[in-house]
Amino acid sequence: MKRRDFLTTSALGLGAFGLSGCYREENKISDKNIHIKKGRVVKLKLATSWPAHFPIMGTGVDNFAKRCKELSGGTLNIKVYPKNILVPALQVFDSTSLGQIDAFHSGVYYWKGKNSAFSIFGGMPLGLTSEEMITWMKFGGGLDLWRELYGKFNLYPLIGGTTGPQMGGWFKKPINSLTDLKGLKMRIPGLGGEVMKKLGVNPVLLPAGEIFTSLERGTIDATEWVGPALDSMMGFDKAADYYYTGWHEPGSILEITFNKKRWEQLSDEHRAIITAASEEMTGNMLQEFRYKNAKALQELPKNVQIKTFPKEIMDAAKAALSEVLELESKKSKDFKQVLESYNNFTTLNKKWDDISTKNFLNIRS
Amino acid sequence: MKRRDFLTTSALGLGAFGLSGCYREENKISDKNIHIKKGRVVKLKLATSWPAHFPIMGTGVDNFAKRCKELSGGTLNIKVYPKNILVPALQVFDSTSLGQIDAFHSGVYYWKGKNSAFSIFGGMPLGLTSEEMITWMKFGGGLDLWRELYGKFNLYPLIGGTTGPQMGGWFKKPINSLTDLKGLKMRIPGLGGEVMKKLGVNPVLLPAGEIFTSLERGTIDATEWVGPALDSMMGFDKAADYYYTGWHEPGSILEITFNKKRWEQLSDEHRAIITAASEEMTGNMLQEFRYKNAKALQELPKNVQIKTFPKEIMDAAKAALSEVLELESKKSKDFKQVLESYNNFTTLNKKWDDISTKNFLNIRS
Repeated sequence: MKRRDFLTTSALGLGAFGLSGCYREENKISDKNIHIKKGRVVKLKLATSWPAHFPIMGTGVDNFAKRCKELSGGTLNIKVYPKNILVPALQVFDSTSLGQIDAFHSGVYYWKGKNSAFSIFGGMPLGLTSEEMITWMKFGGGLDLWRELYGKFNLYPLIGGTTGPQMGGWFKKPINSLTDLKGLKMRIPGLGGEVMKKLGVNPVLLPAGEIFTSLERGTIDATEWVGPALDSMMGFDKAADYYYTGWHEPGSILEITFNKKRWEQLSDEHRAIITAASEEMTGNMLQEFRYKNAKALQELPKNVQIKTFPKEIMDAAKAALSEVLELESKKSKDFKQVLESYNNFTTLNKKWDDISTKNFLNIRS
Repeated sequence: MKRRDFLTTSALGLGAFGLSGCYREENKISDKNIHIKKGRVVKLKLATSWPAHFPIMGTGVDNFAKRCKELSGGTLNIKVYPKNILVPALQVFDSTSLGQIDAFHSGVYYWKGKNSAFSIFGGMPLGLTSEEMITWMKFGGGLDLWRELYGKFNLYPLIGGTTGPQMGGWFKKPINSLTDLKGLKMRIPGLGGEVMKKLGVNPVLLPAGEIFTSLERGTIDATEWVGPALDSMMGFDKAADYYYTGWHEPGSILEITFNKKRWEQLSDEHRAIITAASEEMTGNMLQEFRYKNAKALQELPKNVQIKTFPKEIMDAAKAALSEVLELESKKSKDFKQVLESYNNFTTLNKKWDDISTKNFLNIRS
């Protein structure tokens, strides 16, 4: 994505809380709020990394804001700004950290440059599914670690949706062996891209608006994106015939992240409202992705062939991932600590998942 | 479970809304509420089918009620009554329908006797997982049908949690073929029990408190319950060695159901609060089941052998299920209609799930 300069306005710098004349008496609610008067309408500015009303992710956060207003009897007004309106898509982390805006909605994998450990909170290639990621976060210590590390940036994160399993991407030619990957130019970011690089792929970074044309013209040979619902909108089925099943983003986590100081200034009631609304959003988004992916898959044109990478490639990907994780752990204490927590949960979870969900899905078919 | 007589009290019959002296000014909230004064504290009585603070299911509804209070700034007080305090465990449907209490938390499968179609909303043997069930409900028309059919009983249901995949049960002897099932006495209710009956099993109904002793003494040969977390508490690992993986309850749905008239009397804000809190509860419960099942599985004593039913039995179960569903569809128009909606979603979902979640879980291991 393109980075635009941050559109500062003096108003933003002065703090984004707004106080209206509306007033509400509170009923026995403990209130740690120092700066904000009880019962006043609180206005928050939330910027996203998506275009306005972008399907599922963008509409999800629109609904979240609407829900906060409903749940609070109108006292919590979160205004959602699509990307590049208040701040550029990938500037939302810094702007919220600095208190120029109050909150953002984005994907955790974007902030790897801030701290490599953050990439684990966003999801792991060949790792946990969405439901498992959230379970690790809530019950396996992941959320505490995330909040601790984001705290150093004056940020307080909440889970703000999840994509479910993503697809492996669109290829112009079939991939039958590791040899077919050598020198392939593919748009694939994050840890998945690093794994692919070790398998001989040349990972390319491209702004969203340039991917289709690059794929169509053969400037790149392949691209990953999300899944059938969002990929169809990008028109990839008109530029490539081979659509591979997923391995590198089995459960990507999105985030609703607040400026930590702002978060602490909110009343207990408003914090509870934001938390409950973010939980509702997370479930809804996962289910909406499932439904719309299933619908879009059904409607793919006939030229599209669904394929799965051969075992040789997935085995090599597992080995490459181990190397990438080992190297990152050596470079960063934070990465090592988060990976350890993640791995502990993965070990615990796997034995149960193997005999429950995985076993059942195999019996069912 | 034992049915006790309904403990009527005249207070219950008079309506369960309570108005305290607390008052709150409302801020631009549309209010369809006729009977309840704006901003007054609303008190609701909710009865469950579980013992007090029963792990995961009972504590889940405790947290739901706490959350409603937090989200409403103390204006929505839902008091949770464990089973047999206000009403017997399996009387909650009728009591709520009659307006003797305001709401209940229970499992949908209990109400098959009211309308056979209800069993489908509770989950299907060899059918949809929890996430898929909820997606069918929200995006595939299931929730609308559920509300329409419950509406005839003056009830308004919300999804109130889900168990995730359950286990197939505890057996005193290994089951290696269909022959081993003939004449077996097993505690297994619902559609799963009907399928087992067609395979030669003798399904037995027993109150929860009598299952362990019956299994230990050999009065029954097998029992299903939930999964490692709750089964361990029942002590089944001390009475049987063979623990079979699941097939008959891949995604059981629990419910928070309101008296429909009471529901309609609530303010928009309170209805939004209950809905969001029930969504939060549903996600939390699924994740808590996953975590606690994984932990409990790890801690099972060494005598326990995890086994999977042979393909012969699962194939026979699929055939038997088709017969059961066909018969029920012939007997009930409602069953037929709900099954049709369920089957439409299942067909749509399967193609996507096969190439996403199922395929990924097989690649991962």
